[in-house]
Amino acid sequence: MGATTLTLPPGGYDDFHVHLRQGALGTFAVKQLVASGARLAYVMPNTVPPVTTTAQALAYRDWLVAQAPAPHLRYCMTLYLSPEVTPEEIERAAAAGIVGVKSYPKGVTTNSDAGVGEYDAYFPTFAAMERLGMVLNLHGELPSNDAEGIHVMNAEERFLGHLERLHKRFPRLRIVLEHCTTAAAIQTVERLGPTVAATITVHHLSLTVNDWAGQPHNFCKPVAKTAADRDALLQAVRSGNPKFFLGTDSAPHVRARKEGPATAAGVFTGAYVMPYLAEVLSRIGALDRLVPFATAYGRAFYQLPANGADDGAARAAAPAVTLCPDPDATIPAELTFVDETGATTAVVPFAASQKMGWRLDRAV
Amino acid sequence: MGATTLTLPPGGYDDFHVHLRQGALGTFAVKQLVASGARLAYVMPNTVPPVTTTAQALAYRDWLVAQAPAPHLRYCMTLYLSPEVTPEEIERAAAAGIVGVKSYPKGVTTNSDAGVGEYDAYFPTFAAMERLGMVLNLHGELPSNDAEGIHVMNAEERFLGHLERLHKRFPRLRIVLEHCTTAAAIQTVERLGPTVAATITVHHLSLTVNDWAGQPHNFCKPVAKTAADRDALLQAVRSGNPKFFLGTDSAPHVRARKEGPATAAGVFTGAYVMPYLAEVLSRIGALDRLVPFATAYGRAFYQLPANGADDGAARAAAPAVTLCPDPDATIPAELTFVDETGATTAVVPFAASQKMGWRLDRAV
Repeated sequence: MGATTLTLPPGGYDDFHVHLRQGALGTFAVKQLVASGARLAYVMPNTVPPVTTTAQALAYRDWLVAQAPAPHLRYCMTLYLSPEVTPEEIERAAAAGIVGVKSYPKGVTTNSDAGVGEYDAYFPTFAAMERLGMVLNLHGELPSNDAEGIHVMNAEERFLGHLERLHKRFPRLRIVLEHCTTAAAIQTVERLGPTVAATITVHHLSLTVNDWAGQPHNFCKPVAKTAADRDALLQAVRSGNPKFFLGTDSAPHVRARKEGPATAAGVFTGAYVMPYLAEVLSRIGALDRLVPFATAYGRAFYQLPANGADDGAARAAAPAVTLCPDPDATIPAELTFVDETGATTAVVPFAASQKMGWRLDRAV
Repeated sequence: MGATTLTLPPGGYDDFHVHLRQGALGTFAVKQLVASGARLAYVMPNTVPPVTTTAQALAYRDWLVAQAPAPHLRYCMTLYLSPEVTPEEIERAAAAGIVGVKSYPKGVTTNSDAGVGEYDAYFPTFAAMERLGMVLNLHGELPSNDAEGIHVMNAEERFLGHLERLHKRFPRLRIVLEHCTTAAAIQTVERLGPTVAATITVHHLSLTVNDWAGQPHNFCKPVAKTAADRDALLQAVRSGNPKFFLGTDSAPHVRARKEGPATAAGVFTGAYVMPYLAEVLSRIGALDRLVPFATAYGRAFYQLPANGADDGAARAAAPAVTLCPDPDATIPAELTFVDETGATTAVVPFAASQKMGWRLDRAV
């Protein structure tokens, strides 16, 4: 299975959905990102406080760049959809090279009509984004609500009507349904126009509800669904439909926040994104889909240069990245960093201590 | 809501499904059981090793009796369905007063036919149980299996065909579907004959999938399902159908086993069963169902004396048990016991630190 070496474009792969945090955990996350062979990081704005202005986004990018030397690595910045994100702010953001705006479920109420109503308030913002070519990134879940019969297992499917209505209202607005987890989402994205795409994480290509029930390190939002849903994600990647591309949603939490009385939502794939992906795609005989899924389709949708490097200097600095079969390659049991208090702190990666069968080689 | 004091029969309530463990944790569990106001404990046999012989069951009962003085408390013992539980062993068990035999999912394969096939091997045992009036207690879930599309959310519903086939094959065998969690299970038990009943836990009257997703102390098997399923359980209790009675499935695990990288399945209601039940039933205006649900229907199905005490001496020893509204009553953040190593160890009860609004008073 996949006994051939895979060569990635200069610099490596593109992650169109990643959480890079702040502080010592952020420094750790950036170093993991660089080690993962990423040449592009589409950065989520859910920091504390959230990134809601162009100035915050640029300052956050400067901070990220300073955490690890990687001139070949492009950070694509986003704003957190909120009342501060006015059409005027969109003008500033577009002029400054901010790529997208991320909408979180809190921006959608549990009632479908009211949900649309909440989006209505942002229509002027969406119109400005459409006009200026910015991308809308949707966390596609409705908040759980007993009266509405909405729970973690159907929250994504119940959201899809909102996606379709937004697309019909703003047909030229590029919309990405982030970290999709269901067959219903795959079918909806396939059916809608070319301005609608979706990211797929590495962990959702492996996990089902059985894997997070009782295993906090596999718990994330949206939760992994059934085997049939997971298989629909695998088929979407295998099909080579360019509407589906890699966004890892890699989200580090310290061990104590994953193994406590309340489990923080998030799976950390960190530096091991490519080995996980090679392993799962080789299992279904679709290793040939890894390079376009992880390096081509996302750039095409985002209308970014196909060339991994942004300029000559960056291209020169871009390391050669290859994936090599390695039967002894194993994911570490934990990764550590020194936090602000000076304490050595652990983050448990996805599939900790498991053999992955692939090794990433980077040579600058 | 439920501002009236509730008086239970002498000794208290009946728990038709409880895990009392062994060792120091077992001593703790028995003391919690006695403090809970239980006059009957139907004891699960999944000890280490499991209880598979009459001799083991009697020895386990003697050990339980020795852990806390409670002459009014009746321990109903069970065997763990396994090849050792032959028709001859059933003869011995019935003669010794063993009440039932518990079947766990491992006794059923993921393939329906093979599942029935596995049960077929036990038909002589079931026939002896039917003849001798012993009860079959079913953990009604099929093991998760991707190829079969079976996962934790549908594992109970997918099992119900096995229950129906067993009932048709052994119509006089009394069968209890333990800790049922779905509307489908309620409907099936309602539909089948009078020899089929079900236990309902206290925690499944409150929880849904949203409550265990990310909250390990609410994680148990079967997992809590949707709000519609929970509401079907509440309606079953409210309806006063005697086929549904209390079995708490109270299952203590030390904090480290609930808050680690792998969450042990089990919710511990311990000494607070009656306050939880009074609170949830008062919320739906069905407080009047508490006494029959928790003290009458189970005994009727099991053909046990309606009188809470087994003899005069026990009756004399039976404490008066009342439930009193108490707005300040709160579930402890944790309970502790001293383990075999001398270490003080914590168990986190269900709804830890939450106001429950009811206090249990016991006066011998």
